[in-house]
Amino acid sequence: MDSSRHKSHESRADTDDYAASAVDDALRDHFRLAASKAGRISAAYERLWHRLEGSTTGGKRFRPRLVLATHDAYGGDDHKAAVHVAAAFELLHTALIVHDDIIDRDFTRRGMPNVSGSYRDIATTAGIPIPAAEHRGLSAGVIAGDLALAGVFRLVERADLDGPVRARVLELVDYALFASAAGELADVDFSMAEEIPSAEQIIETARLKTAVYTFETPLQAGAVVAGADDEQLELLGEFGREIGIAYQATDDLLGLFGDERLTGKSTLGDLREGKGTLPIAHASSTSYWPAIAPFVGKPDLTSDEADEARRLLVESGAETYTRGGPSRHASAAVAVLGRLPEQLREALHPIVVQSLERDR
Amino acid sequence: MDSSRHKSHESRADTDDYAASAVDDALRDHFRLAASKAGRISAAYERLWHRLEGSTTGGKRFRPRLVLATHDAYGGDDHKAAVHVAAAFELLHTALIVHDDIIDRDFTRRGMPNVSGSYRDIATTAGIPIPAAEHRGLSAGVIAGDLALAGVFRLVERADLDGPVRARVLELVDYALFASAAGELADVDFSMAEEIPSAEQIIETARLKTAVYTFETPLQAGAVVAGADDEQLELLGEFGREIGIAYQATDDLLGLFGDERLTGKSTLGDLREGKGTLPIAHASSTSYWPAIAPFVGKPDLTSDEADEARRLLVESGAETYTRGGPSRHASAAVAVLGRLPEQLREALHPIVVQSLERDR
Repeated sequence: MDSSRHKSHESRADTDDYAASAVDDALRDHFRLAASKAGRISAAYERLWHRLEGSTTGGKRFRPRLVLATHDAYGGDDHKAAVHVAAAFELLHTALIVHDDIIDRDFTRRGMPNVSGSYRDIATTAGIPIPAAEHRGLSAGVIAGDLALAGVFRLVERADLDGPVRARVLELVDYALFASAAGELADVDFSMAEEIPSAEQIIETARLKTAVYTFETPLQAGAVVAGADDEQLELLGEFGREIGIAYQATDDLLGLFGDERLTGKSTLGDLREGKGTLPIAHASSTSYWPAIAPFVGKPDLTSDEADEARRLLVESGAETYTRGGPSRHASAAVAVLGRLPEQLREALHPIVVQSLERDR
Repeated sequence: MDSSRHKSHESRADTDDYAASAVDDALRDHFRLAASKAGRISAAYERLWHRLEGSTTGGKRFRPRLVLATHDAYGGDDHKAAVHVAAAFELLHTALIVHDDIIDRDFTRRGMPNVSGSYRDIATTAGIPIPAAEHRGLSAGVIAGDLALAGVFRLVERADLDGPVRARVLELVDYALFASAAGELADVDFSMAEEIPSAEQIIETARLKTAVYTFETPLQAGAVVAGADDEQLELLGEFGREIGIAYQATDDLLGLFGDERLTGKSTLGDLREGKGTLPIAHASSTSYWPAIAPFVGKPDLTSDEADEARRLLVESGAETYTRGGPSRHASAAVAVLGRLPEQLREALHPIVVQSLERDR
């Protein structure tokens, strides 16, 4: 047993906790200030800010951790700056999920009402009929997401970076939103199309919609704050892309075959919605498709029908194909890791492991 | 006839045109770059950018003109910076109207399909049923508005301002969005409430939703770029507030009594919608209200019923009361003008006149 290594892991966990709590503090300060200003306008506006702050809690602070990991690994010493950039990425995540939920007409997240859901519920409780109440919820969500998005830039400003570094961080944040919007648009287009998108299209859309702002740009932003060079940024981008695909494939598997008690998400949802996922894309190219197709996008799919669809997806090879994705892309990510500095390898390896082994 | 004065007006008009065209150029550059990057992702994404750019054209460039007016009047010499800040306010306007149209479920603006309307129409043409097509339109609008909002900060960054000036401009932009969101939320809340809001509530909501980002903050931002002091910013804020209310009262009058051929807006809309306007708020406190109320918020109001409602609004004194608003608040604005530098008085006086005399 290598006790020094064990200790180094422990101390990294401590650093992680410390870092996450600094990000929490930065977000709390941001919301405290805004809510207090909002309270001077109206109690209703203050409540919107509190509700928005609520949407930033409960997550794993995944993106902030990546920002801080690369910042520290490249020897960055501007901790305050890194923490604020990290918080900015968390708030970007909030802005995107709040608006994504509007596009998906989702009123819950992680089993709880989201911003739109809370406002819809207040309206229905007040006796307002469902369509109007839902629209009120969506309206509050549009407003809240805009406020979160503006907050992203506010936090980058508070990072107090030197001109050229700030410009590069802003470019990354801007690209993160730009890519996510492209993915979101493609997603909306797929949902209206007759054909099942190809696996390549699904991977590219997921990369744009989620992986760029979740992996690529947070990793790069931390490195930029620490002063890393372009070659390193390129490698981090490559690592982020591979891990992003591995995550996506795992997500698609969990959405179909996951343990609902762990994921907190019904395994009927993706099927009922007819969501273009990797197993579905693969199955659509096999002889099993005519048998599977009737279950995909069936809004009232029963549990038994879902079981049958899953059985056919396994038999068609779609499940095996998709299961190969995470390990294939995680291996590619590990290969990139080998070309990154030692300290970064150690910091990022757990992320590779998580992307392979996660069950929720 | 004072020919020198006439000449000075002419040369100001020239400067105005020059300035407006520099703002157009800054916006065109912004969109050209974004659309070209978007085209590398997909033709559909490039179209979204072109459609968004379309929403920035056709307006009066009102907010940019105010930024440039105060910048020049306070002796600012960083024309490039002022133009980019001016363009940022125009793009903020775009972001807000694109998202406001979603909240109002409006699919047209100035008689043409807006972003959401274009995407809805493409979907219906492709045979997608109305509710899904509308939701697709709204989804594209959510995405486009987010891109416009991020562009605001991008343009401020391109203004290339010194640290402290940039921080103050960002604070103004941030406050503009913050106030607008508060007004938007209050508007949604009013539309769900049983009672007619009071005149004070209507004025405050309109100030937050529109006047802060249309008058107060653009005037202040131009002054900040030119290095004006806090006392001047305070006066500009006061001027902006008064002019904002004058504009609002005029808007409410035009919405009820305007010439549809000039306003391009039906005089049935506000009544059918039951919109809380100043004449309605006043009428609700008179003995005429029981006779007027049945027409307010009647979705199928006929032209004859609207005529009757208008007759009652005139008889109740609500029209006279509202007509007093613009001149009262324009006078207050003129009083503030007297405390501003000579050059600014000359530059802003036409705005006062417009707010009193506009017919559209």
